[in-house]
Amino acid sequence: MRKVAVLGIGQTKVSEHWDKSLKDLAGEAIQGALSDAGRTPIDGLFVGNMLSGSLNQQENLGVLITDWCGLTPAEALKIETACSSGGSAFRSGLIAVASGEMECVLVVGVEKMTDSRPADTTAALATAADADYETAHGLSFVALNALVMRRYLHDYGWQHTDFAPFSIIAHANAVTNPYARLSFPVTEQDYAQARMIAEPINLLDASPIGDGAAAVVLVPAEQANPRSTNGSSTRITIAASATATDTLAIHDRKDPTWLSAAYSSARKAYSQAGVAPQEIDFFELHDAFSIMSVLSLEACGFAERGQGPRLGLEGDIQITGRLPIATLGGLKARGHPVGATGVYQIVEVVQQLRGQAGSNQVEKARIGMAQNIGGSGATIVTHILKKE
Amino acid sequence: MRKVAVLGIGQTKVSEHWDKSLKDLAGEAIQGALSDAGRTPIDGLFVGNMLSGSLNQQENLGVLITDWCGLTPAEALKIETACSSGGSAFRSGLIAVASGEMECVLVVGVEKMTDSRPADTTAALATAADADYETAHGLSFVALNALVMRRYLHDYGWQHTDFAPFSIIAHANAVTNPYARLSFPVTEQDYAQARMIAEPINLLDASPIGDGAAAVVLVPAEQANPRSTNGSSTRITIAASATATDTLAIHDRKDPTWLSAAYSSARKAYSQAGVAPQEIDFFELHDAFSIMSVLSLEACGFAERGQGPRLGLEGDIQITGRLPIATLGGLKARGHPVGATGVYQIVEVVQQLRGQAGSNQVEKARIGMAQNIGGSGATIVTHILKKE
Repeated sequence: MRKVAVLGIGQTKVSEHWDKSLKDLAGEAIQGALSDAGRTPIDGLFVGNMLSGSLNQQENLGVLITDWCGLTPAEALKIETACSSGGSAFRSGLIAVASGEMECVLVVGVEKMTDSRPADTTAALATAADADYETAHGLSFVALNALVMRRYLHDYGWQHTDFAPFSIIAHANAVTNPYARLSFPVTEQDYAQARMIAEPINLLDASPIGDGAAAVVLVPAEQANPRSTNGSSTRITIAASATATDTLAIHDRKDPTWLSAAYSSARKAYSQAGVAPQEIDFFELHDAFSIMSVLSLEACGFAERGQGPRLGLEGDIQITGRLPIATLGGLKARGHPVGATGVYQIVEVVQQLRGQAGSNQVEKARIGMAQNIGGSGATIVTHILKKE
Repeated sequence: MRKVAVLGIGQTKVSEHWDKSLKDLAGEAIQGALSDAGRTPIDGLFVGNMLSGSLNQQENLGVLITDWCGLTPAEALKIETACSSGGSAFRSGLIAVASGEMECVLVVGVEKMTDSRPADTTAALATAADADYETAHGLSFVALNALVMRRYLHDYGWQHTDFAPFSIIAHANAVTNPYARLSFPVTEQDYAQARMIAEPINLLDASPIGDGAAAVVLVPAEQANPRSTNGSSTRITIAASATATDTLAIHDRKDPTWLSAAYSSARKAYSQAGVAPQEIDFFELHDAFSIMSVLSLEACGFAERGQGPRLGLEGDIQITGRLPIATLGGLKARGHPVGATGVYQIVEVVQQLRGQAGSNQVEKARIGMAQNIGGSGATIVTHILKKE
């Protein structure tokens, strides 16, 4: 298989885009990515999206966007794996180019969630669980994560306030990101006083939904000339791509506080990239809830089991720390337009590796990892990108 | 890229399966395919489905089915391109194996449509059109096809009754197919008297929806030992796979009676397989409406423009004819569980090439073609399979 490079990136602000439809949002991100790449034609379009069928009365999203962007007869498809749809679409586009089947592909993640009533959005998000055995009992995704967090607090003896740094750091990192939905700082006091959503998850443990789109252009690495950014010449290649699955229902797992799919997919990714966890310079993880950040850090080998909160308390995950996470706000503050999130993560990894992350730049960033999670840890997609 | 073989096939009857959920149906087809292939483990599951979000309140379909079938941690995803979702999922699974990224994959097409009220199903099918510019005007898919058929009758001077053979032959071919939804014959008189749905499309011009699932197991050809079926030793390989797209809206096309995406994808497929149209022994086409059969036959080079109905009137498309189509009932009589249809087509091509099509066996079938259409000709996926 050929090595593949990210040639262009584009994104819209995550927001309540009441004046823009799915295809408008996707088109804006695609236009950005194509213009950044300086290249067409495109052989294929891979769309990451979860909710267009349930919230937007729109399927056939691949060709809808292809047609809207004037890219026909390029082939197109929509890929869905719940909240990891963006990561899965990126992986599919990558395989298409790496295999030699296609020479240049676009991957776009897009989601439009804020036109619907909140109750409808919550119900739509619950379609990521088993309709027969889980959703029927009224369990929402916040409730599922609350059960896991409560168990974690019980098993390892942490206090709820020990999770505050995850929220505070994500918000701090979003302040200068023009694409972030919640670009304001929050304090320890804000966190302690935030209203409870599903105990012990409060408002500041949870990421906000949103409308948005992010896109990348992929080509064989040998066709991607190094580009000059900030005085240095860089080429961003994909060093690893791996997906693993676990049981859909948390109640079917031997251990509800262990993300076995994160462990497997990260381990495969490290092996493909030939790196150890300590060589990862920053990590765009799936902080849909603060408990998920902790579980991901542990499963990916960045913390001992039960010790994830320590990375927040000791400053390791700050931009200047040992392993910066959510460097442009993460799901928590950039926002979580579910099927688009995985592509936002990749776009942000590229921004860091190119040295285009502004005041949030991770110094000497050379190897970045992104991890996208579908369902409560059921599908986990890990990518490692390198600056060459 | 490696040559890929179909090692196993499985399918459920297309019916009103009120006692089975999406995962039950998919599981049944998968069990059949795995048992036919005599092989696990599976590296990836590619699910073709269009409507689970809008009709079944179920997303995350890939891992739902993977988990249900005990296939975790194999990776999984759902692929959606409207009514060609099955064909697109097959193509994605094929690329994963051909590239060397995976060694053994399952492709399953599944759809569950009959639990919903007919008006909801019609609305859900309309999500294949542009929600902003088409669906808003109330145009259903039957209505769209009726406009095309009316234009075709006007342009080329055919009578409506000239389309009767497409319906009569499909129904005749379904009579002995245990998996077909409408396994009864219809006559010329039935056709002439069928009630009008959207003039000039009557009930017997249109395919029925349904619940159902079909699955295949794909492996590298060098790992597929020839199997002994009906006394002969066969191996079924995939000789071509190509997708092309056209404008989503018919009103945006220069010529509404020409399927340019069928032309492009078939031409690419012929070139990959190194065959001419006249070497195709049978053709599982996308006869969602009789007009679509005619347009596909013309765009794929089996009839001159405007002369498609002649193939029906002259007997060419019968099992014993020059180019048998819909050999086990087609969409018209086997049924059209939309996202599953493309995989049913592949399963039926394999049945024919293996010599397992019973009284519908196409004699000396060596090269079979399947074509799956999403939207009104917007996404068209063509595959050619060979018996070796």
